Amino acid sequence: MSNSAFKKVALISRPGKHSVPPTLIALARYLQAIEIDVVVESQTAEMMANQALTIVDRQAIAEHAELIIVVGGDGSFINAAHIAAAQNLPILGINRGRLGFLTDIYPYELEAISNVLSGQYQVEQRFMLEAHIGAAEKALALNEVVLLPGDAAHMIEFDIHINDNYVCHQRADGLIIATPTGSTAYALSGGGPILHPGLNAVVLLPMFPHVLSSRPIVVDCDSQIRIEISKTTKTVPFVSCDGHQRIALLAGEELCIGLHQKKITLIHPHNYNYYATLQTKLGWQTRASIRETIDQ
Amino acid sequence: MSNSAFKKVALISRPGKHSVPPTLIALARYLQAIEIDVVVESQTAEMMANQALTIVDRQAIAEHAELIIVVGGDGSFINAAHIAAAQNLPILGINRGRLGFLTDIYPYELEAISNVLSGQYQVEQRFMLEAHIGAAEKALALNEVVLLPGDAAHMIEFDIHINDNYVCHQRADGLIIATPTGSTAYALSGGGPILHPGLNAVVLLPMFPHVLSSRPIVVDCDSQIRIEISKTTKTVPFVSCDGHQRIALLAGEELCIGLHQKKITLIHPHNYNYYATLQTKLGWQTRASIRETIDQ
Amino acid sequence: MSNSAFKKVALISRPGKHSVPPTLIALARYLQAIEIDVVVESQTAEMMANQALTIVDRQAIAEHAELIIVVGGDGSFINAAHIAAAQNLPILGINRGRLGFLTDIYPYELEAISNVLSGQYQVEQRFMLEAHIGAAEKALALNEVVLLPGDAAHMIEFDIHINDNYVCHQRADGLIIATPTGSTAYALSGGGPILHPGLNAVVLLPMFPHVLSSRPIVVDCDSQIRIEISKTTKTVPFVSCDGHQRIALLAGEELCIGLHQKKITLIHPHNYNYYATLQTKLGWQTRASIRETIDQ
Amino acid sequence: MSNSAFKKVALISRPGKHSVPPTLIALARYLQAIEIDVVVESQTAEMMANQALTIVDRQAIAEHAELIIVVGGDGSFINAAHIAAAQNLPILGINRGRLGFLTDIYPYELEAISNVLSGQYQVEQRFMLEAHIGAAEKALALNEVVLLPGDAAHMIEFDIHINDNYVCHQRADGLIIATPTGSTAYALSGGGPILHPGLNAVVLLPMFPHVLSSRPIVVDCDSQIRIEISKTTKTVPFVSCDGHQRIALLAGEELCIGLHQKKITLIHPHNYNYYATLQTKLGWQTRASIRETIDQ
Repeated sequence: MSNSAFKKVALISRPGKHSVPPTLIALARYLQAIEIDVVVESQTAEMMANQALTIVDRQAIAEHAELIIVVGGDGSFINAAHIAAAQNLPILGINRGRLGFLTDIYPYELEAISNVLSGQYQVEQRFMLEAHIGAAEKALALNEVVLLPGDAAHMIEFDIHINDNYVCHQRADGLIIATPTGSTAYALSGGGPILHPGLNAVVLLPMFPHVLSSRPIVVDCDSQIRIEISKTTKTVPFVSCDGHQRIALLAGEELCIGLHQKKITLIHPHNYNYYATLQTKLGWQTRASIRETIDQ
Repeated sequence: MSNSAFKKVALISRPGKHSVPPTLIALARYLQAIEIDVVVESQTAEMMANQALTIVDRQAIAEHAELIIVVGGDGSFINAAHIAAAQNLPILGINRGRLGFLTDIYPYELEAISNVLSGQYQVEQRFMLEAHIGAAEKALALNEVVLLPGDAAHMIEFDIHINDNYVCHQRADGLIIATPTGSTAYALSGGGPILHPGLNAVVLLPMFPHVLSSRPIVVDCDSQIRIEISKTTKTVPFVSCDGHQRIALLAGEELCIGLHQKKITLIHPHNYNYYATLQTKLGWQTRASIRETIDQ
Repeated sequence: MSNSAFKKVALISRPGKHSVPPTLIALARYLQAIEIDVVVESQTAEMMANQALTIVDRQAIAEHAELIIVVGGDGSFINAAHIAAAQNLPILGINRGRLGFLTDIYPYELEAISNVLSGQYQVEQRFMLEAHIGAAEKALALNEVVLLPGDAAHMIEFDIHINDNYVCHQRADGLIIATPTGSTAYALSGGGPILHPGLNAVVLLPMFPHVLSSRPIVVDCDSQIRIEISKTTKTVPFVSCDGHQRIALLAGEELCIGLHQKKITLIHPHNYNYYATLQTKLGWQTRASIRETIDQ
Repeated sequence: MSNSAFKKVALISRPGKHSVPPTLIALARYLQAIEIDVVVESQTAEMMANQALTIVDRQAIAEHAELIIVVGGDGSFINAAHIAAAQNLPILGINRGRLGFLTDIYPYELEAISNVLSGQYQVEQRFMLEAHIGAAEKALALNEVVLLPGDAAHMIEFDIHINDNYVCHQRADGLIIATPTGSTAYALSGGGPILHPGLNAVVLLPMFPHVLSSRPIVVDCDSQIRIEISKTTKTVPFVSCDGHQRIALLAGEELCIGLHQKKITLIHPHNYNYYATLQTKLGWQTRASIRETIDQ
């Protein structure tokens, strides 16, 4: 559990809740007080007016920092994780107001932050997916790749192939391909299973499928997944990676999804427990019962 | 909203939580203090040692009371509702510790109780189902009739008929036929829909069905539902009404379910709101999100 | 079962499958041969080039016909049902190639068509919903009213009220409000229950809801349903009725849904059986088992 | 694809369908005709009266055969797989009448059988789980370990621990822990995901859970899963492995589930495709649509 200490960190956040800028400022001061070198990503710096801090471009963070600290919710974390992936840096999440699946320290837990920086932390690797259409540039996803209709009222027709095996023909509103990290995000609200983050697997989840016996399918994360849009599809579906990138897909085109070679390194406090987060976020700890009528 | 006042009430509960006897005793004293005639059902009286109260058999409650007050959870309420149905009396539920779907006054809300008794209340009718096999006596259900395997490891094969129309053949662990009242109990944990209590409908919910396109079916509550156990069934399934009665069913026998002619009258405080109960019991009021990763 | 005969019919279809025009032409000839007066809706007539038939506008059908016969799939039926509703005429569906939920005679079953026209038929009433925003014109739906995101990647925030009772706050991709007719269409692919067509009920089905304890809710069809789009919603959601009409909704606006006063009259062959249609369409008749491993 | 040939096989089946004995006899004759040494398991031999075949006990099969051929459905295959595991032999399944998930050659495909025996086959490893209570003997499961109530009308209360991390408290009818092989059996009918057979994962699926936000959880197959029956549980639950073994569990006892060290070796014809089996068994190949009403 005792790992190498972090001496130089970069702060990242994104505009949103009012509580973020004061948290960023307080955090920067605290880090400086405990003699950590702090730099701030340039867009994040705009939220921290008049602070005497070194500002760096997101493409240059690795030259100045050994760790990215992101302040915000899971959405901010996902954003920052794309930067962390590109910069090959580990990432630590500080919650903004409530617990996230990915951000597991509250901003007032200064001792916990200090412990992490001094080497008391857990390291966890999470894999990413990469998606591309034809020869286009690859888009990365830590949570999920989603195929969505260009026009929300129309279904998409497509074939799924895995490792060049034909799996099925689908007529559906779309398809979610989620990592374990993403299995507790969009895919969960569509009825998908929870995949433990240590699992080398992805889940394919058809959205509002026509065939009632469709079920989520879990396959190895290094599978080559190929989605072939049927030539008869009248809508122009698009692909979204982690809710941000959008790539239009024409009838007859193929979407290819596979494992990204580099992993994201998550830093957790030494007492982090994945299941404890699940319990809190999903409300499992409640003793409220819908069935005391039966068994009491 | 102003209805006729209740002057004579009967208290009912059942052994269980430690908090019930003191609540019963305090409630009896309060009712006597506000000049309500109080009788206690005989088994309930055993929980209230040494109280100078009139004890009556459950078959004779209607001779001494205009209203049944039940103290406990939803399970106690369902029990008492069967007595209320037989005695043709309205019923009011006092929670024991936490909110129930059916018990909507906390014991410390003495003013609310007093208001109800003085005529400030809502009246709601709930229907019951009756189930029988062959010429056997009918069993009643306020929540649900459930067909269960005699041996939990074996499925049951049966045909469903509604109003003499063949609906489907099922191979399943069982079948739940739930009223709107029961739609938030056992059926809900099996994926059934919520039926508003004012709806004259029942839901048929196959349990672990073999055919993946099986879905809950909602039909009119005065439908004649007939479940025909297949002659090839190797187990001896049984029928449970509100989790209490058990009637064994042989291969080739039929279970008939229909509407019971008498309704249960529920008394609610004047500010009762069904949806507010749903929100609390099902945890809908939480603002916790599983998807801020996507949309933030 | 013996009802009044139909002597004057109007044919309706819509462009699509190649098999429709020859079916329309053959059907028109057959009807004329059995001395039925036939008119053709004007857009349908374009598919039947060079036939000597009386062509009428869809607004004037009731002046020339006692029955609308629609040729096509369920989509064509839904289209024609809107005309039937406006013209106050009953409607009969002829399948195009495979069984529909709504079209229950195959085109080659000439005797069945003749029997229906001579008075051997079942009459079934189906209700419609009407939806409107503010003072705008009402849109009708035989299947469902759907609230969808203007941008498929963003969720909608809204409050649901039923009969002026606050039901819940939702953050979801959308909401389906389906009639019994629509319960076997879009709503079914999203996990909704099947509502028997005779049931006076609608089902509210949140799409990809954030709160995992969200469930479909079934309420009386004459409920006033009010959907209030949250002021914080960043997308411009829209409303679709039967997949065709689209009305944009701004943050803060309200969508009101209620029962339409006029019902649609469906004409079925005398031996029509709703459950038989379910069995065929949903594949229930299969004896294929996923669980012989367990119970054999 | 070309592997070592099999020269000595053992036939296994179990009493059931009428079609099995003639298939066994025809298969034995065919194998002898193509100069394969055939032995028959002793209980199977009782179904093949008067055949001049060598009969061997199931404990001694490995001394006489290099391959087990099982004739029957998936249930028979699972049975035979337990023998194959104990004898450390590969196993090939011949269907009895319809396709199974595990039996993929029809008895009339004599050339396919001959090809397999001559070395034209695919080899697939499937892992098994082992379950035990206290110091009791371990029971094996190729499909699933199921925790079931001793009395079908009562729920079980238990805690789940994975690798000594507390996961959650459950009040449910039971719990299914399924392998990829079992993910298309009992677990699938309870709403579980499909796990590809190559995945080193198990799925935990609570049955009728009280907490509505419960979801299937997929974890690594070498996880140590510990189910602790709550001291307050009033029923005597039991454990079933592959639907056959039953071990009673007392309140306060623990059920431990982990990976069995030896794998089962499945032999498939050279053209076997897992997804093709899924398509057929789950009816995915149908083009029947529930939603043409929307999109047509």
